Amino acid sequence: MDRDGRKGNCVSMTQGQKKRGKRRLWGLKKAIVPKRSQKIDLPPGSLVYVGSHQPTHKAVITVIEYNGHIFDERQVERVEDLLPLKPEPFTTWINIDGVHDEAILAQVGEAFHLHPLLLEDILNTDQRPKCEFMENLIYIIVKMFDFDGTQQCLLPEQVSLVIGPNFLLSFEEERGDEFDAIRERLRTNSQRLRNGGPGYLAYSLLDTVVDRYFLSLEKIGQSLEDLEESLMSDQPPNILQDVHHIKRELIFLRKYIWPVREVISTLQHADTSLLTQQVQVYLRDVYEHTIQAMDTLETYRDLLAGIQDLYLSVLSNRMNEIMKVLTVMSSVFIPLTFIVGVYGMNFEHMPELHSHWGYPLVWVFMILLALWMLRYFKRKRWI
Amino acid sequence: MDRDGRKGNCVSMTQGQKKRGKRRLWGLKKAIVPKRSQKIDLPPGSLVYVGSHQPTHKAVITVIEYNGHIFDERQVERVEDLLPLKPEPFTTWINIDGVHDEAILAQVGEAFHLHPLLLEDILNTDQRPKCEFMENLIYIIVKMFDFDGTQQCLLPEQVSLVIGPNFLLSFEEERGDEFDAIRERLRTNSQRLRNGGPGYLAYSLLDTVVDRYFLSLEKIGQSLEDLEESLMSDQPPNILQDVHHIKRELIFLRKYIWPVREVISTLQHADTSLLTQQVQVYLRDVYEHTIQAMDTLETYRDLLAGIQDLYLSVLSNRMNEIMKVLTVMSSVFIPLTFIVGVYGMNFEHMPELHSHWGYPLVWVFMILLALWMLRYFKRKRWI
Amino acid sequence: MDRDGRKGNCVSMTQGQKKRGKRRLWGLKKAIVPKRSQKIDLPPGSLVYVGSHQPTHKAVITVIEYNGHIFDERQVERVEDLLPLKPEPFTTWINIDGVHDEAILAQVGEAFHLHPLLLEDILNTDQRPKCEFMENLIYIIVKMFDFDGTQQCLLPEQVSLVIGPNFLLSFEEERGDEFDAIRERLRTNSQRLRNGGPGYLAYSLLDTVVDRYFLSLEKIGQSLEDLEESLMSDQPPNILQDVHHIKRELIFLRKYIWPVREVISTLQHADTSLLTQQVQVYLRDVYEHTIQAMDTLETYRDLLAGIQDLYLSVLSNRMNEIMKVLTVMSSVFIPLTFIVGVYGMNFEHMPELHSHWGYPLVWVFMILLALWMLRYFKRKRWI
Amino acid sequence: MDRDGRKGNCVSMTQGQKKRGKRRLWGLKKAIVPKRSQKIDLPPGSLVYVGSHQPTHKAVITVIEYNGHIFDERQVERVEDLLPLKPEPFTTWINIDGVHDEAILAQVGEAFHLHPLLLEDILNTDQRPKCEFMENLIYIIVKMFDFDGTQQCLLPEQVSLVIGPNFLLSFEEERGDEFDAIRERLRTNSQRLRNGGPGYLAYSLLDTVVDRYFLSLEKIGQSLEDLEESLMSDQPPNILQDVHHIKRELIFLRKYIWPVREVISTLQHADTSLLTQQVQVYLRDVYEHTIQAMDTLETYRDLLAGIQDLYLSVLSNRMNEIMKVLTVMSSVFIPLTFIVGVYGMNFEHMPELHSHWGYPLVWVFMILLALWMLRYFKRKRWI
Amino acid sequence: MDRDGRKGNCVSMTQGQKKRGKRRLWGLKKAIVPKRSQKIDLPPGSLVYVGSHQPTHKAVITVIEYNGHIFDERQVERVEDLLPLKPEPFTTWINIDGVHDEAILAQVGEAFHLHPLLLEDILNTDQRPKCEFMENLIYIIVKMFDFDGTQQCLLPEQVSLVIGPNFLLSFEEERGDEFDAIRERLRTNSQRLRNGGPGYLAYSLLDTVVDRYFLSLEKIGQSLEDLEESLMSDQPPNILQDVHHIKRELIFLRKYIWPVREVISTLQHADTSLLTQQVQVYLRDVYEHTIQAMDTLETYRDLLAGIQDLYLSVLSNRMNEIMKVLTVMSSVFIPLTFIVGVYGMNFEHMPELHSHWGYPLVWVFMILLALWMLRYFKRKRWI
Repeated sequence: MDRDGRKGNCVSMTQGQKKRGKRRLWGLKKAIVPKRSQKIDLPPGSLVYVGSHQPTHKAVITVIEYNGHIFDERQVERVEDLLPLKPEPFTTWINIDGVHDEAILAQVGEAFHLHPLLLEDILNTDQRPKCEFMENLIYIIVKMFDFDGTQQCLLPEQVSLVIGPNFLLSFEEERGDEFDAIRERLRTNSQRLRNGGPGYLAYSLLDTVVDRYFLSLEKIGQSLEDLEESLMSDQPPNILQDVHHIKRELIFLRKYIWPVREVISTLQHADTSLLTQQVQVYLRDVYEHTIQAMDTLETYRDLLAGIQDLYLSVLSNRMNEIMKVLTVMSSVFIPLTFIVGVYGMNFEHMPELHSHWGYPLVWVFMILLALWMLRYFKRKRWI
Repeated sequence: MDRDGRKGNCVSMTQGQKKRGKRRLWGLKKAIVPKRSQKIDLPPGSLVYVGSHQPTHKAVITVIEYNGHIFDERQVERVEDLLPLKPEPFTTWINIDGVHDEAILAQVGEAFHLHPLLLEDILNTDQRPKCEFMENLIYIIVKMFDFDGTQQCLLPEQVSLVIGPNFLLSFEEERGDEFDAIRERLRTNSQRLRNGGPGYLAYSLLDTVVDRYFLSLEKIGQSLEDLEESLMSDQPPNILQDVHHIKRELIFLRKYIWPVREVISTLQHADTSLLTQQVQVYLRDVYEHTIQAMDTLETYRDLLAGIQDLYLSVLSNRMNEIMKVLTVMSSVFIPLTFIVGVYGMNFEHMPELHSHWGYPLVWVFMILLALWMLRYFKRKRWI
Repeated sequence: MDRDGRKGNCVSMTQGQKKRGKRRLWGLKKAIVPKRSQKIDLPPGSLVYVGSHQPTHKAVITVIEYNGHIFDERQVERVEDLLPLKPEPFTTWINIDGVHDEAILAQVGEAFHLHPLLLEDILNTDQRPKCEFMENLIYIIVKMFDFDGTQQCLLPEQVSLVIGPNFLLSFEEERGDEFDAIRERLRTNSQRLRNGGPGYLAYSLLDTVVDRYFLSLEKIGQSLEDLEESLMSDQPPNILQDVHHIKRELIFLRKYIWPVREVISTLQHADTSLLTQQVQVYLRDVYEHTIQAMDTLETYRDLLAGIQDLYLSVLSNRMNEIMKVLTVMSSVFIPLTFIVGVYGMNFEHMPELHSHWGYPLVWVFMILLALWMLRYFKRKRWI
Repeated sequence: MDRDGRKGNCVSMTQGQKKRGKRRLWGLKKAIVPKRSQKIDLPPGSLVYVGSHQPTHKAVITVIEYNGHIFDERQVERVEDLLPLKPEPFTTWINIDGVHDEAILAQVGEAFHLHPLLLEDILNTDQRPKCEFMENLIYIIVKMFDFDGTQQCLLPEQVSLVIGPNFLLSFEEERGDEFDAIRERLRTNSQRLRNGGPGYLAYSLLDTVVDRYFLSLEKIGQSLEDLEESLMSDQPPNILQDVHHIKRELIFLRKYIWPVREVISTLQHADTSLLTQQVQVYLRDVYEHTIQAMDTLETYRDLLAGIQDLYLSVLSNRMNEIMKVLTVMSSVFIPLTFIVGVYGMNFEHMPELHSHWGYPLVWVFMILLALWMLRYFKRKRWI
Repeated sequence: MDRDGRKGNCVSMTQGQKKRGKRRLWGLKKAIVPKRSQKIDLPPGSLVYVGSHQPTHKAVITVIEYNGHIFDERQVERVEDLLPLKPEPFTTWINIDGVHDEAILAQVGEAFHLHPLLLEDILNTDQRPKCEFMENLIYIIVKMFDFDGTQQCLLPEQVSLVIGPNFLLSFEEERGDEFDAIRERLRTNSQRLRNGGPGYLAYSLLDTVVDRYFLSLEKIGQSLEDLEESLMSDQPPNILQDVHHIKRELIFLRKYIWPVREVISTLQHADTSLLTQQVQVYLRDVYEHTIQAMDTLETYRDLLAGIQDLYLSVLSNRMNEIMKVLTVMSSVFIPLTFIVGVYGMNFEHMPELHSHWGYPLVWVFMILLALWMLRYFKRKRWI
């Protein structure tokens, strides 16, 4: 997968450095502000790509035609090369990498009679996950998350599916290898998949998407552990920004995972011939995984809140520690300094100064005073 | 658009200055306190303008009559000039800028048989967004937000629509250009719009209103980014008031956007001949945009809470930093000052004073003591 | 209205003084602790007045009899003087000021066949707002709030209504002028009101009660503005107690306004001949006002929470400011004091003391040291 | 009532002392940890007493038999003495004080055919309030709270009722006088109670239980007032532990009152011949009281949170105050001490020392410096 | 039970030591991060063990066959030895300890026709509690918690049940003695259990699992008490990490107990011949215990939040205490040190120095000054 030029929400690692911090910030801008303003005042159904992926390359169209016995995979350049589709015992999976290519999208829309408002949603990569039933097609839009080890980043990607009677359209923002395992299973003649039709194929893709949420959550869980471990050490580092970044990641993950639950629930109970009952049983499994991902996410939110509380108390505690040192030092030496100041005065008539034992007695007195104060602080448990 | 004399809720920018701050505060007063008290003890249905826009100019009535083939646009002075409306293949869009003009409103109410309670709501610009079905008319009241670049302000404006069988009434507080794009599309013969009747026209206006929410949210998102970036710098500025102002903006946006969701949902499922099924499909799209605006708004609330937490921790951390400097300086020098005080005493019998090596030895001792303390603080990671 | 001897929940104003603070506190006791304990172990239906108004005067019974043409208003001493009521084209409005008069209440209850449990609720002025349908009567209990300018106080008052087929009973705790506008409209022959029967009259009273909530909310909004403005100044005052008092007012307002929503909703959808369909349309308007009052109240809660956060951060910031001054002063002068201490020592052999340039050189060194430290703090942005 | 040996959740009063604090703590242990572990691995339906009341005395069985004309009250030793019950115009109320007596419970269970699982619940005094309909009996379990003036404590007690066709069983943990008012009303021939049957009697007992919640809430309200008043004083005391204890009391009260709402609602809408329609009207009244108790409790929670916030801000403010004093003292005197240190140096060549005006001029300079600094702090409002 | 090598979520005790702290941390890693990533890209239904228990030993299969008269218990090595099951008057309970043994699981799955997706769930010990009805079998997955006294740890264990017409399969992660009491009751001929069939047996197991939640909650309650008690002492220790660990335990307990409520509710209302009506009555009892466990858990969460607030206020208070000591010491001695510094100056013309009473007068003045300051601080209640 080509990740150069991609920016997304990054999970900040605990060994954060300044330089990476900057990169994170830049990624943030993309994430916070959906650039929808360019679409204002356009009539509904206008096809304008809204997203952070630079259209550096042309969209790639991959076509896989298969049934229980036959499997064919090829790349096409133009949408016309797709048609006509093979009839129904065959399933045709058309995967389009790069939704920024508005021209291709328009052609696909025309070829498969997609509703203009939905094409618009596919192009708008800031879309909320949803599913729609329209004119004997099912439209599904979900978010996939991918972990980029180089930049220590979670990269969101919008995946749109259109389920037809004998075809499945899938749209990705970037060319990715997330679905390679499914292609492999198709190639190696997995009977369940080969005979399942577009519904089972869509299930497999959704299952892959939801399974990947656990990957992202595992990364975040790892960061939480690292944070917790670092707080247990004697010199807890400044984890403020790390906490803040993980919190932000969780907010965005939540925003995108939460509606997926609804999407899958709708599919599961949909009264449509495009999804067989067997597929709906499998969808229940995906549904439960989504619930579990949400559960884990909520648990992480709670844990993160706990870690933040803990850190703030550590700060308070440390402040107490510092103040104690200052107070003990000052309280012990300020009276002593006063005493030596007294005998540094230049009065003519100061009998103590002339006494032979004056100097040692002052020392003795000062040492006793210091010890008494130390004992006082000891009893107060300040030292 | 004439914005002089308008005040509203301002989104505070991060480079806030005192002078602008004052202006914001003044704007706030208008926003927080709805001046409904003047209406108390009046009988229900009394037409009294409640709002912050000074009635500096007369209301402007713009009339657009169109069907698939014919388009006519004109301004009228008196309400009587509107009547009679052209019959049903024609749609008449009557736009009234300036709801403060109670006389005009009363005439419009009479001409179109509007219910007095609803006329009252149109005049009361502190109204909660809502929609009502009454006597074969649909009344819709929503809030639009506009960004004023000069004052760095979000300006709320109440937009009321009345959908009739062959006409649409729209009421705005100020003369604005928000709907010019729709007028332009009407002029340039957009068939869908020209043939859609008042229902589709109302949909178009609502779509424009909701799309503008994203503009406001984008501005706030930008401010959030600026705040976050400024917190990452070495010398985070005081962002308290900025945080507070954005929080207030979000509270007010939420108050006005949240009921819009309900309004559009009601329209979408309404069993009325005024809205065709095709319009209701389009309304679903607006509904989803409203949900997405709310999602974004909630996300911003969470982010803002995170930024506030981060800032407070930065403050705590900085306090720790300051205390460390104070404690290190005091703890190192206070014992040394005590020592030099000792040898500043004027006792007659102080053997050290007469020793030849006394002075250099004291220096050596003091330097060793200071180094030992510095090492201690180093080990504690305070320096 | 006679307000001597009344105490309630006060909205604290920002220019709070000690003396007023005391008065507030005393008012609070009444508010927090409902004195229901005196009723424990009494059988259900026992008529005991529970409230804060001292029974200083006798209850006043005002009777208004009207229909479309005739209007008669008089005060009666004894309940028997009320009967018999004029037959149904007439509506009789009986207003009883002073529910503390248990004897009168018992007579009214007997005369109009009121259920003992409901009479008990009318007497118990700590009652939760509610409505009940019983034996062809509708019982409504709501709370009205009144602003007392002298004590800067919100004063709660319980208003109970009983709607019968041709009469309306209204019970107030004190003689008040809140309903005078309605009496005036009755006198001046407002046809809608005169022909509306007891249902429309009850609606008018409820509308007045709910409209007055906005008055109270406006006062609180004004206080919020004052607080916010004072926080923006250079020397933010101590606003803790003001924040706390407004918070308390909001808690109590909420407690009493929230159930009103339910009451009006129940009335609106009630299947009863006592409320005509026209009245139920008007009740929808009241319902919406209640929702709006709740919305405003919630907004104020959020704003108040924001103001509190802001104030706490202002405190933290100011502490930082103070610490910086202390640290800069100490850090600059403590080393200098050490240096002059060194040359105040009385060692016999201190070559610097005898050097001609010693004194000026020490000055030069100290000035350079101070400048260096100031530059260091400058770079840290502490000064 | 015999309260020796009883421990429960205590409402901490504001004049808390150490000794009482210890007692509270001990009470807490009982409250927090339900000792259910002794029941683990026993088969369901095993009768084991789980509670904090030591079985110091034998259970007391009081029997009251009455109808409209006849009233008979006696204590029995053995369960057999109860039987046979008088036939249906008679109602038999059997009150058992001391559920710790497992043998008696088992006999009662056998005699009245009680389900073993429910007998188990009656014995387990950590039971959640609930009601069950089984085999023409109604089982009700609720919690009563009693205020112990000696220990300043709220004492929870579990009350279980079993309603049969012509009898009512009531189980209490301790012999108490809470229901004496009802016994008195029975004796003095209150017709409604005497003719109401076991349903009306159960209602009267529940009414008493719920009315007593207001007693407990009044005590807590009083404590809240005391706390608030003490915070308004010039020297607010340390109210942390008091706040914490009241919070704990509220948590436990809430835990036990909340399900009572559900219990009464179930009874109110139950389709059973054991509760007449008249009783269900009365139960609505109890239901409303429960709602009101919950409302008050929630209000107290909010108030307590407000008091806690206020106290924390008071702490912050006081810290600011302390720091200001320290900073002003240090900042004024540290430079002066440096100056006098300068002229305490022993350099041979210090021209100022020999000047006649040196000493007074230094004084003048120091006084001016001090005044200037004081003016500076004055302008900063620190003094 | 063999606990070596087991790791789970630990409840931290208040006498926490560093060493144990480390062990806890290690345990945490297992708990936070479910290791599902190894399953990504595998086809659905793949049997891979996901869990923290090392497969150190082979799975143990225990078979108990019983009816009202006959009881037989044995261990088998291979799954084939189980078959054929005895016909329906007999119930066969097959308990498999060690779900890590994927081969055995696959054989069991085949022998009893278990659905592959559910077998997968049984192996995946990070499963959310759930129940499923499929092909005349009921699948139940719940979590059991066990307290390990050596490591002061709560150990989670997944228990899966499969209810068939005449058999019950139970799967545990480890060989445990939790169900020994039930085996004992079976052996000793408890008629209810012996005749209840697989439904009653499943109820008994679930009852044991839920009862054990109270054991865990008791341990946590004990820790809360210890924390509270330690906070009441004069020198409250640092309880931050203990609070954090208990919070984490509660988060995980909640995550696993909450769905159990739903599981049992589903079973209770299921329309299946596998559960008799009598069993469903008993399940209601388990349901209530689950509700009560959740109630207790929520109460503990509230209590823990209260303890945390209390601790933070204790910290603030202590900081105030420290600052007061520092301020009093500094404020008293700094002016005195200035005074003695004045008379340590070496001006030639200082008349006071030559006065005979100068020295004692300075002492008198300093003592008076010190007393005045102490009185000032006394009045401020700082000392």
